[in-house]
Amino acid sequence: MLADTLASLTPVDANLAIVVQARLDSLTKPPGSLGRLESLVLELAGMSGEALPTVTPPGVIVFAADHGVAEEGVSAFPQEVTAQMVANFVAGGAAINVFARQIGARLEVVDVGVKGDVEGAGVVHDKVRRGTANFAREDAMSLVEAERALEVGIRAAERSHAAGCRCLIVGEMGIANTTASSTLLAALSGRPVSRLVGQGTGIAPVRLAHKTEVIVGALAARCANPSQPLELLAKLGGLEIAAMAGAYLGAAARRMPILVDGFIATVAALLACRLAPALRGYLVFAHRSREPGHDVALELLEARPLLDLELRLGEGTGAALAFPLLEAACRMLADMATFDSAGVAGGGTET
Amino acid sequence: MLADTLASLTPVDANLAIVVQARLDSLTKPPGSLGRLESLVLELAGMSGEALPTVTPPGVIVFAADHGVAEEGVSAFPQEVTAQMVANFVAGGAAINVFARQIGARLEVVDVGVKGDVEGAGVVHDKVRRGTANFAREDAMSLVEAERALEVGIRAAERSHAAGCRCLIVGEMGIANTTASSTLLAALSGRPVSRLVGQGTGIAPVRLAHKTEVIVGALAARCANPSQPLELLAKLGGLEIAAMAGAYLGAAARRMPILVDGFIATVAALLACRLAPALRGYLVFAHRSREPGHDVALELLEARPLLDLELRLGEGTGAALAFPLLEAACRMLADMATFDSAGVAGGGTET
Repeated sequence: MLADTLASLTPVDANLAIVVQARLDSLTKPPGSLGRLESLVLELAGMSGEALPTVTPPGVIVFAADHGVAEEGVSAFPQEVTAQMVANFVAGGAAINVFARQIGARLEVVDVGVKGDVEGAGVVHDKVRRGTANFAREDAMSLVEAERALEVGIRAAERSHAAGCRCLIVGEMGIANTTASSTLLAALSGRPVSRLVGQGTGIAPVRLAHKTEVIVGALAARCANPSQPLELLAKLGGLEIAAMAGAYLGAAARRMPILVDGFIATVAALLACRLAPALRGYLVFAHRSREPGHDVALELLEARPLLDLELRLGEGTGAALAFPLLEAACRMLADMATFDSAGVAGGGTET
Repeated sequence: MLADTLASLTPVDANLAIVVQARLDSLTKPPGSLGRLESLVLELAGMSGEALPTVTPPGVIVFAADHGVAEEGVSAFPQEVTAQMVANFVAGGAAINVFARQIGARLEVVDVGVKGDVEGAGVVHDKVRRGTANFAREDAMSLVEAERALEVGIRAAERSHAAGCRCLIVGEMGIANTTASSTLLAALSGRPVSRLVGQGTGIAPVRLAHKTEVIVGALAARCANPSQPLELLAKLGGLEIAAMAGAYLGAAARRMPILVDGFIATVAALLACRLAPALRGYLVFAHRSREPGHDVALELLEARPLLDLELRLGEGTGAALAFPLLEAACRMLADMATFDSAGVAGGGTET
């Protein structure tokens, strides 16, 4: 399934740019005056293969999983919070629920590896294992489990696509997952760990120093090879990060534009792009978060996010907040009058 | 009417901050993790005087007027485009129509000074005069006309308020109005004109140099006094800039949060704040535009806009694009579960 998805992922369609640009320049506004909204709709057309792309309704998938490394005391919240937040997602009370409702999104919550039992019909049960192992001491999971977690993501993206979603937002919940993400990023980038580690949900400076030490130690112990992304994922985790990467690949294989959330989502995207470089063309970056590693991950992907609102929540919230800009870009192209149709005299950019 | 509005404009309510902050910290997210969305809802509560502020439905008012200074050849578009674009607004084909529909806004188009006749029932006819005089040669309008144009804005804001709008967006249409705005900003700020003048709708470098010369000459000829904002407005115009300033004052007097659009809207806000400094507390800044003078106007207002999308269209479009962030901030506060109600273990920011 993973191999099929990778094989069916084709580059975006660059040929549509000419026709979309011509339409953009015919609309009743000075040429180029809608700035990044114009470049955005050019990208969306290339992704979807449609001269008039649409992104509604969007799909939001939140993958939840636990991290064995939480036992090293790297988070400000206890590990039980992962399962408690899944219950909160099902009840509709979390931030991502509120923002998903605002944008009219189909929201799906997937248990890909929560340690405890997650009750309720509102969750897709696709658990690969009960949390990762503590990667400070042993590999987070096996190669087979990493591939299975990627496939959980591919299946989830395919459900969104089958349900009619035209744009994918992927979020996560997993106590200690900024630790796993910073470790993956350090392995992928070769940058100093101290530049890639942040306060996560809000840890104190002394715990931040400890988190950094745990990561440095784990990197040395796991000997992860950056040129082997699947192995990297197995050694460092987490299950929800693998599922996110899989969902990106599945969505891109279906030509769905992907709106990437914050730090963890961007590290998952970086990893997925190592598996399939053509994925990069399907990614729009929603926001620049406050996690210091996010800047580095964005830089490696040559990404320029839409928003900068000092968010550090995850769950897909930053992407849901940016979504109306994608919708506006599509509506601009489809719904604005042209100079001819409106009887407005041309003019604009002089050279 | 102007005097009554200025008298009834009271400072925002700072007392609500404590109760709103307490609720923010009880919601199921790490404290502070929604960054600027959290500070935004604190501000909106202070403006509206409500512990759970709402901004829907928003009202959009577009003021249209012509500028005598257009005859100096400062724009890439002919003056007739002002009236043609008003017809486009009425027909629903302009960018602001598309974005206003997306956010469910009540949209009103007001002719406060278009040179030609504007037909149709879809326009509020409140014309003060048929365009300003060319301020390169004489005062743009009389003091009485400036005050009347401000009152056109106050009345429009009151119609929005009476129609149930809970947040105001003010846009403009007027060929050559970046020239008037740069001139007003130069007079208000004392900064060098060359730093305050931009390409507007997209003029060539040679026309930009000419535009700068026209502004420098007009500033010397009009001898506008920055400590007399109403006189400044009369000398330099424009009618729609005065109406925008009036709409801000009218909205703030009704405790409506105001989402300020781009360069022209910000210059109008700066001018209105000189008339009533308490207005500043009711302003949220939507975006940083590509007009170089916008940075200076934002700096003078100590404003930090929400978006930076290289827009330079006007009409209120940037504010309409930022509006979903205000809506999200309000929904977050009202609709998210608390740690207690959701049974999620607390934690978060450590010190």
